[in-house]
Formats: sequence, C-alpha cells, structure tokens
Amino acid sequence: MARSGRTVRLAELGEFLGRPIEGAPDTPLDGVAALDQAGPRDLSFVRSLHWSAALRESGAGAVLIPDGLDPGGRPAIRSPNPSLDFARAAQHLLPRQRPEAGLRPGAMVASSAELADGVSVGSGVTVGEASRIGSRTVLHAGVHIYPNVQVGQDCELHAGAVVREGTELGDRVIVHAGAVLGGEGFGFVSDEKNARVRTPQLGRLLIESDVEIGANTTIDRGSLGLTRVRRGAKIDNLVQIGHNCDIGEDSIVVAQSGLSGGTRVGRAVVFMAQAGAAGHLTVGDGAFVGARAGLHKDVASGARVFGAPALEERAWHRAMAALARLPDLMRRFRAVERQLGLRSTPQDPSASDSEKES
Amino acid sequence: MARSGRTVRLAELGEFLGRPIEGAPDTPLDGVAALDQAGPRDLSFVRSLHWSAALRESGAGAVLIPDGLDPGGRPAIRSPNPSLDFARAAQHLLPRQRPEAGLRPGAMVASSAELADGVSVGSGVTVGEASRIGSRTVLHAGVHIYPNVQVGQDCELHAGAVVREGTELGDRVIVHAGAVLGGEGFGFVSDEKNARVRTPQLGRLLIESDVEIGANTTIDRGSLGLTRVRRGAKIDNLVQIGHNCDIGEDSIVVAQSGLSGGTRVGRAVVFMAQAGAAGHLTVGDGAFVGARAGLHKDVASGARVFGAPALEERAWHRAMAALARLPDLMRRFRAVERQLGLRSTPQDPSASDSEKES
Amino acid sequence: MARSGRTVRLAELGEFLGRPIEGAPDTPLDGVAALDQAGPRDLSFVRSLHWSAALRESGAGAVLIPDGLDPGGRPAIRSPNPSLDFARAAQHLLPRQRPEAGLRPGAMVASSAELADGVSVGSGVTVGEASRIGSRTVLHAGVHIYPNVQVGQDCELHAGAVVREGTELGDRVIVHAGAVLGGEGFGFVSDEKNARVRTPQLGRLLIESDVEIGANTTIDRGSLGLTRVRRGAKIDNLVQIGHNCDIGEDSIVVAQSGLSGGTRVGRAVVFMAQAGAAGHLTVGDGAFVGARAGLHKDVASGARVFGAPALEERAWHRAMAALARLPDLMRRFRAVERQLGLRSTPQDPSASDSEKES
Repeated sequence: MARSGRTVRLAELGEFLGRPIEGAPDTPLDGVAALDQAGPRDLSFVRSLHWSAALRESGAGAVLIPDGLDPGGRPAIRSPNPSLDFARAAQHLLPRQRPEAGLRPGAMVASSAELADGVSVGSGVTVGEASRIGSRTVLHAGVHIYPNVQVGQDCELHAGAVVREGTELGDRVIVHAGAVLGGEGFGFVSDEKNARVRTPQLGRLLIESDVEIGANTTIDRGSLGLTRVRRGAKIDNLVQIGHNCDIGEDSIVVAQSGLSGGTRVGRAVVFMAQAGAAGHLTVGDGAFVGARAGLHKDVASGARVFGAPALEERAWHRAMAALARLPDLMRRFRAVERQLGLRSTPQDPSASDSEKES
Repeated sequence: MARSGRTVRLAELGEFLGRPIEGAPDTPLDGVAALDQAGPRDLSFVRSLHWSAALRESGAGAVLIPDGLDPGGRPAIRSPNPSLDFARAAQHLLPRQRPEAGLRPGAMVASSAELADGVSVGSGVTVGEASRIGSRTVLHAGVHIYPNVQVGQDCELHAGAVVREGTELGDRVIVHAGAVLGGEGFGFVSDEKNARVRTPQLGRLLIESDVEIGANTTIDRGSLGLTRVRRGAKIDNLVQIGHNCDIGEDSIVVAQSGLSGGTRVGRAVVFMAQAGAAGHLTVGDGAFVGARAGLHKDVASGARVFGAPALEERAWHRAMAALARLPDLMRRFRAVERQLGLRSTPQDPSASDSEKES
Repeated sequence: MARSGRTVRLAELGEFLGRPIEGAPDTPLDGVAALDQAGPRDLSFVRSLHWSAALRESGAGAVLIPDGLDPGGRPAIRSPNPSLDFARAAQHLLPRQRPEAGLRPGAMVASSAELADGVSVGSGVTVGEASRIGSRTVLHAGVHIYPNVQVGQDCELHAGAVVREGTELGDRVIVHAGAVLGGEGFGFVSDEKNARVRTPQLGRLLIESDVEIGANTTIDRGSLGLTRVRRGAKIDNLVQIGHNCDIGEDSIVVAQSGLSGGTRVGRAVVFMAQAGAAGHLTVGDGAFVGARAGLHKDVASGARVFGAPALEERAWHRAMAALARLPDLMRRFRAVERQLGLRSTPQDPSASDSEKES
C-alpha cells in the first residue's frame, strides 16, 4: 500500500535483515502492507498460526514468517521476530523522504549561527544567535530555534516545533510538530502578600541521541540543573515533562502522560497513556505503569503498577474487582448486622438515611 | 452584545428559521446575547418557565421562545427548540468573517500546489508540493501544509495548524490553532538489545466534511491503513487520537480526552473531558462516556459508562457511594467480628497493625 | 551555575532584598546555584538545619540563610524566607534577556495596528488589524496576533503563541510557546437529524496583569460573555480552560489540568496536575485540588479535595486505605457469613461464581 519509487529484490532484503529467504530471490518489492491490503509488490508479515487464513487470501508478494509456519509457496523471509523485521524492512524499502538541503525563502538564520553540511531549513524557520545545527538535519517550515541551541546530525524537527535557548539535542532526534522543548519550568514561591514569585528556571534541557518526541509535547528545562531525556527514549504526543526530570534509555512515555518536576525514570520503563507521576519520585528500570495510573510513591524496578493512587498489579486487580462487588457486600453486611441484632430491620422507620442503600 | 454590521428584520429571521413570529415584523436585529446582557437590537432566547423573571427584566429586542410561554408583548419567534434556533440565528446574523482571498506577503506556495478560487493564504503559510486547497478555504497565518495534502472547500485552518503529508480534509472543516493532523503514530517494537524500532507509519488521515478540530489537538495518521474522522464529528482542544482510530459521524470528543490506536467509535457518541480508551476497542452508536472515564473494554451502543476502569452508569454510582461509606463499613465489620469472637477487642495489644484503622 | 555578565556586591544584594548581611560586603556575585553546584561567584540558599552538611561542602560564594543557622564564616544574607529571597535575588542578578526592540525581517504588522515604544517583533510574527501592543512587549518569532487584540506593557509572548481576535492581555503577562488564547469554545446543540450545530462563541478572553500561561495551553473565549484569568494567576503547560471560566487572583493551575466551561475559581486556589472540573462549578478561595482530582460539585473555601470523584482530604485518605484492604475484608466477611450459616462452605460446589474470590 505504501509505495516508494525504489525496488528491492527479495534476496537483497533477506541479506539486509540477515535472515534466510525462500522462493524466487529476484522477487521485486517496493512497498509494505498488512496482509489484507497487500499487493504483489508488497512485503507483509505473519506473526503466528492465527494468521494462516489471512495469509492464504493475501495478495502480498512476499511475507516475513516465523519458523514452523508454511508460506504456501509464496516468497518468504524466515524471521524469529517478524514484527521487528517488518519494521526494519519498511525503513529499508521506504526510507524517510527528506527535503532538499539549503535554505528556503523566508528562513532567518542569525549571523552567528552555524549550519553544517546538508542542513535543510524550511520557510519561516528562525535560528537564533550562536545556535549550531548538525549535518543533514532537517528543520521543517516554521520551526523556531532560540539562541545558544545545539542540534546534532540527522535530526528532523517538524513544522512549528520550538526549541528554547540553551537546549541541546543529540543525533537522529525526531521532534514532531508543535513540540516545545526547554521552556521555563513551573515553580513559584509565595511572597508576604500571597503573590507568586517565579523561582529561577535557569537550567538546561538535554535530549540525547535517537530520542523521538511527539506532537505538541512540552518538556521543561531544569530549574537549576538538567532535564534529561536519555538515548533512545520515545515520547508520544501531548506529554508534559517537568523541570529536572531524567528519563532513562529506551523508556517510553505514551500520549498525555505527565511527569512532575524531578521524576527519575529508569531504563526501558513504560508509561502508558494518561499516566502521571507526582514530583521527585524514582521509577526503577523496566517498570510498567498502566494507562491512567497516578504515582504517588517510588516504583521498584520491574514492578507493574495500575490505578490512581497506583497499586501493584495484582493488588489493583483485586481492589477493582472488590469495588465492583462492594454494593452487594454492603447489602449482605446489613443482613448480618440484622441477624446479630446490631441494626434494626429495614422496615423500621427509625433507620437513618445514611444506612439506606443509595 | 456580539454585534455585526448586518441588520436583519424579525420577519426575515423567522423565515430563515422556518418559525412563526409574533410582534412587529420589521423589528431590526443585528446581534445575539444572553437575556441579562441583551440590548434592543439583540436576539435572545428563553428555554423554559424558569427564565420568566430574566425575560421580564431583559432588554432584548426579540426572543426565541417555546410554545406555551408568554413573551410579554416583546417581539418573538416561536420555536420548539430555542437553543438550536438561537445557534442558527447567530450564524445568520453574525456570519464568520473571513479574510480577503489571495496570498498575503510571506506566504510560500509550492509550484505544483493548486489553490482553487477564493482561497485566502495568510502570511507565513507554507503549502507543499502537489497539495490542493479547495475554493474559499482560509489558511490563517503560519499554517503549514505538507506535500500531497488535500483540503476541501470552505475550510478554515487557524494560525499555526500543521497538516502532514497525505492527509485529506473534506469541506467546511474547521481546524483550530496549533492542531497537528496526520503525524506519525506511536508504535515501536523492541530489538534484541531492547532498543525501540519504529513500526511503519505509512497510512493516511482522512477528515470528512463538517468536522471541527480543537486547538493543539493531535490526530495521527494510520500506521498501515486509515485514521478516519467521519462527517460532522466535533473534537475539542488538546485531544489525542491515535493511529487507525475511526470516529463516527456526529460524535463528540471533549477536551483532553485520548483514544489509543485502533479505537472504533460509532455515530453520535460522546466522550466527555479527560476520558480515555485503551487500544482497539469498539464504542457503539450513541454511547456516552463520562468525564475522566477510562475504557478497558468495548462499550455497547447507547450505554452510559463512568469511572476508570469504566462501569455502567448505575453500577458506577453505587460503587462510588459505597466507596465513600467503606471506612464506616470497616468499623462496623470489626464490631461484628468481635461479637462473633472472630477478633480480639480493640484494647487488646495483640491486635496487628494491619487491623488498625488508618 | 547560571551566570550573567552582571556583577553585584553582597551589600547591594542585601539592600535590594531588605535583609541584613554577614561577611565581606564587597563579595562579588554574578550567578545563582543549588548548594552542590555553586561556585565562588554564586549565591545559594539554605532552608533548614537539614542542609548543614551540604552547606559545609558547598563552594557557594554566599548564601541566604535563616536566623539561628550558622553560615560557618561564609558571606551570608539573613532571611526569614530564603526560598523567596533566592527567587528575588535570581531575578536581580539574572534579569530576563530581551531581544532588541524593533521589527525583524519577515514580521507583518497590519497598517491599522499600533505598536508602542520599544516593542520587539520577531521574524514571522503577524499582528492583525486594529490590534495594539504595549511598550516594551516582546513578540518572539512566529507569534500570531489576530485583529482587535490588546496586549499590555512588558509582556513576553513566546514563539508560535496565537492570540485570537478580541482578546485582551494586561501588563507583564508571559505566554509560553504554542499557547492558544481566545479560541472559540466547544459548544454544540443537536438538530433534528442529530447533527451538531455550533452555539455562538462570540464572547472575549481577558487575561489580567502578571499572569503567566504555559506552553501549548489553550484558553477559550467566553461564549456570550467573558473568560477571565485574574491578576497574578499562573497556568502551567497543556492546560485547558473552557469558555466563561473565571480564574481568581494568584491561583495556580498545574500542567494538564482542565476546567470545563463556566468554572469559577476563587483567589489563591491550587489545582495540582491533571485535575479536572466539570462545568459551572465554584471553587472557593484558597482551596487545594489534588493531582488528578475530578470535581463534580462545588468546593468550599480552604477545602482540600482529592480523588475522582473528589472527596475531602481525610475522607479520601480513609477511602483509599479502605479500598486497598477491601479484598481482605471480603474474605473475612465470607467467614462471618459461614459462621452465621448465611452461606455454604467454600468446598460446597453450589457456591456461585460471583461469590468466588477473583
């Protein structure tokens, strides 16, 4: 379905992935698609035996398929992890298209800013004084880079993204449209008249290499130190990351989650959507935080937590099941109290309102 | 209060609405207002008998009023649905003001892009290669249209909105400031070293006619297929809609709600504010999802659900009422256990911590 | 750590703060830092005795310190509120750097717009017809001001912020990047075919002086009246404020919170992160709304509420503690029922599913 202009042969794709092929080595491929939408020049993939019927009916030119499944004579690439290899193959068949290098009309680059070779600067982009943009990085239309910013190589910043002064981005960082990086954090102290006085927000934001940041997400700079998003972390749309947070390598923060100031998140942690963390917590390596969970205390490495306030997975499931049955428990409990003479019968007009069932 | 330069007579307005009038047909009107703020050239409206006092004291030049209520001699339009007719009348009296057609200075339209008659392109707008903009559509300042986008007729895109490549918008679509349409979805698979590899995000976003999309809302394209927002759906500010969602006709998604990838929402569904849906759920036609509800399973047509995890309305109300009374239940339960000899008395120092009241 | 080019002597700083100094009056200072990061020209601060060890090891040139604590011979400023005075001192040592006055290339100001003295207008900014910008206000690159907007003196609007028509901002207002002010609110009535018809959104947004608004936050105009954010209120990133809300003086709304239309918030109220309020509620002066709380009814002045639906603080803590212990309660309750002959023994195969522990 998604088609490039670039044709790749099955043998070449197998070699790129480091996986054995079956069928005609010169099968031409120039796109990827799900089984039910694939055509003769599309690569598709099969994850398990459950997909056998879909495979038989598919028009795909070739498939990624695990050992032990039968491709039915169709050209195939054997893979222990078809989803992963499908993702890799898609990047190979359909490389990101980048705009031409150079400045479009209407781009404004400060005289002391430095652009390395092959940088593409869209219309309406501004690059502030003393900022440096690495080789082959793409700044789409309307991106605003404040002064003293460093952006690495091969980054892509989408339209309308804003990078505030002093922020540093590593290599291959992708920033989606409208994200705001390095803004001043939210900290105030009250004066004698209860007016709010801003605390210093003089730190910096460091985004390491291979990080991806979603559309309209906001990440604040450190107040006096660093806010840090480490190598390979992936952050979805509309996420808020407060001042002085530290997000570990390969961690994932799904849409609309929010981390309050000073949250320390370990490696390969997952925050599902709309989760939140109160300030200055530590979330250990590999922890899993369920959708809409609200953290009020530290989470151990590898723990799985759910709910707000968050509970460990099993405790949360039991609490939720119990909550749903609570009205029934209350009814039965009143029967027990009556049997023990601890309460009047339901007919008794002296029963108070608060004891009636809602 | 809100005043146009356009004067409309009561008779004309009644005809436009298809409703009978009472009082002087040539009463001049050029604005709309609430009863307590209306002046002699304003149309206002009365919903029920409760509004009688406000009606008597109002300075409104005319009112929309249901059958059976007395306008007290004031010029009036009879309506079975005054709120609806007030909205229609406001659009008639105070039509949206659109900027002049043509390109403002600083707009950048690619050579292969096509602008139909009467398109208005603000300063700093970019329109990418091969994109097409329909008749009379307004692109306010700083809107960025990537390549291969189609925008229908009579649309209005507000400042800073971003439309990514391949996205298609129908007619009369309104996109508020800063919204990001058609960005890449959030999907990753882990490789052998736990690094995250992006899954293909090669699908498209289709926004049908008469849809409205709020400020800073983000809607991702399909990963391999379509994300679709159907005719007449209305989406508020700061909403996240994941890849491959399908939002039914006339459905409403209120502010800060989030739909995970693959959520299928029927016709005329309402998501109240800050609600969320886990991925790949189906929400039936006419369902109502309460504010802050968190869906973890399908919702039947016409169902009303609340809470997180979401429960059917009555079950949720009972559970919440029971939860508030739970500490009292625990106290009474301990009394029962003591009476049955199942626990020691409160004074007994051997009572464990976990049995003490928190 | 954060260093300006401006050197201030200890004596001058003490005088500025109105606090007594100890040690060499001519100690030079040109930055501020936390104790563990401070160098010899940095001011730092000590809040309590707990910080004594950090103070001894600090390289700070001077410290703010409360009465009764020993600065250990280091130059010091005595303060009853070191956090507050540290914030004030930081603003004095490191004043906001503002871009030069004047229009950058690519700024587009409508002919009937008025810019007062000293206004700085970045590249790609648009200012609509009849809008007025007060003295010394800074519009960073890509800010879009619609027609008929008033902005006061000494304001700062960051890149990509959008101010819709008719909005009014007081003096010293700070608007962070990507915020959208004065957009049309979200109100619809259904017509006979269930299509949604927009209700009039013809009111205005008034932001009073000394307000700060976070990145990508959205604040809608009144539908027929005013949305109002009063003097000194501080609003964080990604917050949604609906039409006709009224936010009191010095109130704080932390990130990702949402206030539905018509919410009235008193003075010095705090909404912690990800909280929400259903429409048309009143929240009294000085109330505290916990993170993720969901308000469904009014909150009294000074009340502290938590949870969703929100409960008063003590009730909420008790309910949450009880919820965590609920599965245990259910187990014990079944034992009571068995003892009373109200249920069969666990071995009894006739026990229904719904009575089994989940």
